[in-house]
Amino acid sequence: MEVVSTIDQVRERIKQWGNEGKTIGFVPTMGYLHEGHGSLIQKAGENDKVVVSIFVNPMQFGPNEDLANYPRDFEKDKIYCESLGVDLIFHPDPKEMYSERFCTYVDMSILTEELCGKSRPVHFRGVCTVVSKLFHIVQPDRAYFGQKDAQQLAIIKQMVEDLNIDVEVIGCPIIRERDGLAKSSRNTYLNKEERVAALVLSQAVKIGEELVLNGEKDATLIKETMIAKIESEPLAKIDYVKIVDGLTMQPVERIEKTVLAALAVYIGKTRLIDNFIFEI
Amino acid sequence: MEVVSTIDQVRERIKQWGNEGKTIGFVPTMGYLHEGHGSLIQKAGENDKVVVSIFVNPMQFGPNEDLANYPRDFEKDKIYCESLGVDLIFHPDPKEMYSERFCTYVDMSILTEELCGKSRPVHFRGVCTVVSKLFHIVQPDRAYFGQKDAQQLAIIKQMVEDLNIDVEVIGCPIIRERDGLAKSSRNTYLNKEERVAALVLSQAVKIGEELVLNGEKDATLIKETMIAKIESEPLAKIDYVKIVDGLTMQPVERIEKTVLAALAVYIGKTRLIDNFIFEI
Repeated sequence: MEVVSTIDQVRERIKQWGNEGKTIGFVPTMGYLHEGHGSLIQKAGENDKVVVSIFVNPMQFGPNEDLANYPRDFEKDKIYCESLGVDLIFHPDPKEMYSERFCTYVDMSILTEELCGKSRPVHFRGVCTVVSKLFHIVQPDRAYFGQKDAQQLAIIKQMVEDLNIDVEVIGCPIIRERDGLAKSSRNTYLNKEERVAALVLSQAVKIGEELVLNGEKDATLIKETMIAKIESEPLAKIDYVKIVDGLTMQPVERIEKTVLAALAVYIGKTRLIDNFIFEI
Repeated sequence: MEVVSTIDQVRERIKQWGNEGKTIGFVPTMGYLHEGHGSLIQKAGENDKVVVSIFVNPMQFGPNEDLANYPRDFEKDKIYCESLGVDLIFHPDPKEMYSERFCTYVDMSILTEELCGKSRPVHFRGVCTVVSKLFHIVQPDRAYFGQKDAQQLAIIKQMVEDLNIDVEVIGCPIIRERDGLAKSSRNTYLNKEERVAALVLSQAVKIGEELVLNGEKDATLIKETMIAKIESEPLAKIDYVKIVDGLTMQPVERIEKTVLAALAVYIGKTRLIDNFIFEI
């Protein structure tokens, strides 16, 4: 496994692989890798070569968000990647990614306006910009994103379609702890009591999903049942609970096509997300 | 020469050329080709294959601009491209480029805020978005742009650098009519009287350039001399005359590094542009 920190180094390796006719699978991450990332990396093994980027992207953090405190452990990440057969880690410095004269942004309307986009107004501009940069640097055949960040996945798919980027975007299922909590680097922020309280997210998701699977079509009723569950937990504070069109991320009233039921909840000071997709 | 109208058709040909190890030169245009475009196409001949796109991009026209009236003559353009040895023309319909669900934009700050960006606020967002799409579709090794659209050239270079797009952007000199008027598809809007009046643009450029070449460092003095020349022409109405930093497009007071002296002038209802670069 090779670890590089400059764009030129990635380009050199990528060109070589291109000349050898190798396919490239790419997993962009912010590091502090867990089994959720691991599942993406394993899936990316369907390509000849696997590239993982580890970059805590300043542009996708708002001014009052957790950029400085975002958990980092590059040595552990390296060992984990090695164990999963990763071929190349790209671990750039922010200065390598954003020059002093940087002033270009990839922006999106509609899909970014609900859910996390509402609570985190600059977030998806940062995500789109950095992912488009990473796609240009790594030039993968396929890129892998977790369904846990469902809105991000929908946005990346839309960006790739709109800008005609020549990459296949593949979404992978949410990986959960044994008790149901969706794996997330931010789970590390939780103290013991909060860790127990955080179960309310996956429990609310499960309740909502069961209602839908049993044929319930009324989005408001489903949402309110999920909200009631979350509100039963004193440490939980709802940011949003929403049921939206799976493509446009716009709220729906009835379950009539593919929908995303998504929630963001503060457990203490930690903001966690979870969701389910119901495909029609 | 092949003429295609769908993205899939371009991709198919590009992949084939890629497998054959061919290099690709790309000239994006809005059609109604003149010798200015011709010089770009000839320069692109330094690659194994030359692709020209002909697409009047709705996104770069403001609501009160000349989208509907923009001159088009695809049959003539085809003959001209054929005569210059073009390998592939990509001539898409707006629906092929912008689906109903389209909502992604490539945007830029700083460089877009002066000169044409001030008079045409949505223009460069449209340019950046369509050029980034075309780069993803055609995947050229080199792309050719005219120095006549100096701000556009600077913006495309900045976009490619910021987003790490794997293409070399090459600027080519302004091509002029015998009497000095910079070649432009919009020259066709001019009546006989206006055609004569339009000479004031290149004359003002020449006056400014000579001052700089003779060592004048005071940007205001140079600008005012150029303005006085233009104002001597009754049919001319100045949109802007500015001297800016060649990289950032921000106004300068002294000629101390590479500068762009650029002007936009209405001749009757037709808005024309011209400029010179002074490299230090």
